[in-house]
Amino acid sequence: MNSNRRKFLRNVTVGAGTLLTGIDALANVTKDEADKSLSTSYEKEQQRFNMCGYAAPKLNVVRIGVIGLGMRGSGAVERLSYIDGVEITALCDELPDRVAAAQKTLAKMDRPKAKEYSGANGWKALCESKDVDLVYTPTPWELHAPIAIYSMKNGKHVATEVNSALTIEEAWQLVETSEATRKHCMMLENCCYDFFELLTLNMVRNGLFGELVHGEGAYLHDLSRDYLFNKKAYTNMWRLRENMKRNGSLYPTHGLGPIAQCMNINRGDKMDHLVSMSTNDFTLGAIAEEMAAKDAFFNEFKGKKFRGSNNNIFIRTTKGKSILIQHDVSTPRPYSRIHQLSGTKAMAQKWPGPERIAFGHQEVKAEELKALYAKYSPAIVTHIGEIAKEVGGHGGMDFIMDWRLIDCLRNGLPLDQDVYDAASWSSIIPLSNLSVNNKSRSVDVPDFTRGAWKTNKPLDLTLNGGGTTSVRKLAPKQ
Amino acid sequence: MNSNRRKFLRNVTVGAGTLLTGIDALANVTKDEADKSLSTSYEKEQQRFNMCGYAAPKLNVVRIGVIGLGMRGSGAVERLSYIDGVEITALCDELPDRVAAAQKTLAKMDRPKAKEYSGANGWKALCESKDVDLVYTPTPWELHAPIAIYSMKNGKHVATEVNSALTIEEAWQLVETSEATRKHCMMLENCCYDFFELLTLNMVRNGLFGELVHGEGAYLHDLSRDYLFNKKAYTNMWRLRENMKRNGSLYPTHGLGPIAQCMNINRGDKMDHLVSMSTNDFTLGAIAEEMAAKDAFFNEFKGKKFRGSNNNIFIRTTKGKSILIQHDVSTPRPYSRIHQLSGTKAMAQKWPGPERIAFGHQEVKAEELKALYAKYSPAIVTHIGEIAKEVGGHGGMDFIMDWRLIDCLRNGLPLDQDVYDAASWSSIIPLSNLSVNNKSRSVDVPDFTRGAWKTNKPLDLTLNGGGTTSVRKLAPKQ
Repeated sequence: MNSNRRKFLRNVTVGAGTLLTGIDALANVTKDEADKSLSTSYEKEQQRFNMCGYAAPKLNVVRIGVIGLGMRGSGAVERLSYIDGVEITALCDELPDRVAAAQKTLAKMDRPKAKEYSGANGWKALCESKDVDLVYTPTPWELHAPIAIYSMKNGKHVATEVNSALTIEEAWQLVETSEATRKHCMMLENCCYDFFELLTLNMVRNGLFGELVHGEGAYLHDLSRDYLFNKKAYTNMWRLRENMKRNGSLYPTHGLGPIAQCMNINRGDKMDHLVSMSTNDFTLGAIAEEMAAKDAFFNEFKGKKFRGSNNNIFIRTTKGKSILIQHDVSTPRPYSRIHQLSGTKAMAQKWPGPERIAFGHQEVKAEELKALYAKYSPAIVTHIGEIAKEVGGHGGMDFIMDWRLIDCLRNGLPLDQDVYDAASWSSIIPLSNLSVNNKSRSVDVPDFTRGAWKTNKPLDLTLNGGGTTSVRKLAPKQ
Repeated sequence: MNSNRRKFLRNVTVGAGTLLTGIDALANVTKDEADKSLSTSYEKEQQRFNMCGYAAPKLNVVRIGVIGLGMRGSGAVERLSYIDGVEITALCDELPDRVAAAQKTLAKMDRPKAKEYSGANGWKALCESKDVDLVYTPTPWELHAPIAIYSMKNGKHVATEVNSALTIEEAWQLVETSEATRKHCMMLENCCYDFFELLTLNMVRNGLFGELVHGEGAYLHDLSRDYLFNKKAYTNMWRLRENMKRNGSLYPTHGLGPIAQCMNINRGDKMDHLVSMSTNDFTLGAIAEEMAAKDAFFNEFKGKKFRGSNNNIFIRTTKGKSILIQHDVSTPRPYSRIHQLSGTKAMAQKWPGPERIAFGHQEVKAEELKALYAKYSPAIVTHIGEIAKEVGGHGGMDFIMDWRLIDCLRNGLPLDQDVYDAASWSSIIPLSNLSVNNKSRSVDVPDFTRGAWKTNKPLDLTLNGGGTTSVRKLAPKQ
């Protein structure tokens, strides 16, 4: 890194202390910052190598090491075992009993035993191993970026669970490491592979929405009692603790990813700036009080400060479109990711149900929506969608994602989600925190492509020489 | 006015020139403004007289003068004619033929002929007349504040169509005139009287939502071809021209009014600050081109600059809740005002339909929603709702509003919507313009109650000695 770069990183790190990770203070901004929107970006640096559209050398067999075998990871091991041309060569979790449980899954799927890693530094040893091409990592959030960076530095492609970064500095390190090593860094944004999302993406490509004007995505899902305050859910209550570290949106990518793909973010347009607003905390602090009154285990959370219950973000793109992203995981309400697209010729909205598409004042009838599915579902869905529904994983989208990732690696195709998507989508977390802590001041979104967005091509919705990866006969469900 | 006040007004007026009404320029803000959110408010002034909860002397008969007899006004004359204890003594429109048409409506309803006013200054003469207690004014937007202020100065109560003000200065003049004259200034926000909105308001009062955290309202209604670009719709295309005068939201109160009532805005809480984002114009400019190509009448709109197609606003209240307000009247999509309430115990959403209420992960079934309507519809609905559906006007809400207004005036009750509601709800138009023109910078919302919000009581949902006003037998529909 040149000295400017180091200097920049120091500044951001200093900024990160006061601006990015605070949960209550109105951060002090310099006069210099105050007369424009806040910025953490540095446009002078040149891109070393463009990872957008990058095709890595073909891998006939993809040797996978899975790090993180808790709630999300255990399911991943089973799903990946259905895919031919895959060898799960390594399993890692801090807790050895989870590794043992994953070995049982491999046995059930007639897969050979994998090498075992555990303990606090097990993941580093796995990343250094010679038997792994792809590190697949559903760990607690704080480990995503460190594992992704260490994997690439050790010559591995990496597929990391959302969110791939918690700070702007981590996001830039993902970009610089991927460009320097020419290893893929894909964020496993599974919601980009859901059926209505892929339908609307392909309809946008075919011009049915005209020019997109506005999009909306969200993560509205009451996790408070069943997950955040559930002793059995997340090791050492890590996910609840994340709600005590920073204000703003903790989980924007499920809503943003599919909208960003429809708007060709980083591939013809980019996110320019955002503003974010959080309410006070009306929920988590109260639940902590209530739980502590029943169970001393929760005493440590009593009287603590939690992020605001409801967070909203507006993002404006360089080409003048807007995106609304919402986050609320602690009020009682039905699940929603919204997924709304509003264009000059049509609009679509998935939640609240039923799924709806309109080309004017009226929504299309159910049978017309069915016809649109038949005509505009992209190749990846028509090719693997039905099998994916059988394998499952959030209704099939998880398996479409896994299969597509492996099929691209085996055929030397670019991945649907590159490191710029991982960095920019995840950067919304610290940027929304920064805006919230500065009375919703507008904040520039760094251009992680450093100009390449102007010429980067939209992701390819055809199989383009792929689709050669077969799926194993389904084992009887246990 | 004291000199400080005059000085303030000059500053705001200067500000208004550069900040409030611009449609494209990024306004210059002073260093002094730049290190905090922008502000147009002045907290030092004291309230002269609190019009919140103010009960004017009873009027046994309410003599009404209607100004503006176009699309909205003609319907108002018929609706008001159904109400006993009302005399429509004066009719005014710039165009005499509209006055004549309204006289026919009165005749049809067996009402006596009213005095006629027309021409550019007809409205002033009506306001000065001795035969009018209440001026009811559905005119083009730019006349709302001038007519309301002149009506009160001439000793009349005024009921003005939305929006009641287009600038912060107009909003303050409404407040100061109402306080000085002790005349009611009610904005006719009819959406506050729709059935689901009143149901949820009463459910909030009964604690079914716990503490409200977040609310959403909107005006999403494609008016572009049927109204804005319709030669026959609005005199001299005034409503289309409004889209060329300012950026931001032009029409926030239909969405905001019902949410503001649920959150007790100006009556226990207040709007503290907002941020607003607009997209580019992707619609109106293109339609102007298209229309001009077919009809030279539209040449004057060709190549003109229109406000951004889609506008979004976040408002944060002093007690830490948030409100999302959306405006889009030119993309093809189904009608929606959203009306979403999210609280610590329940959530509700009206659009997209069906109407839904949830006390957890699942929405209540249709029969449970019906039971909630039966149990929690407030007195005004159970008293007049069914008759209102017969009379009509947006499904009945217009007549509920008209009847309630007259019944309160006849019984000397405070009005549901006071001048502080009219001023603060309407102020969102120039404030969103100011934020949009300053890269979504946060903007303080003036406290039009000047502190009285802390002790003002929520509006009364009982009839409280009212309900004495009868409705005439319905005439056969023509």
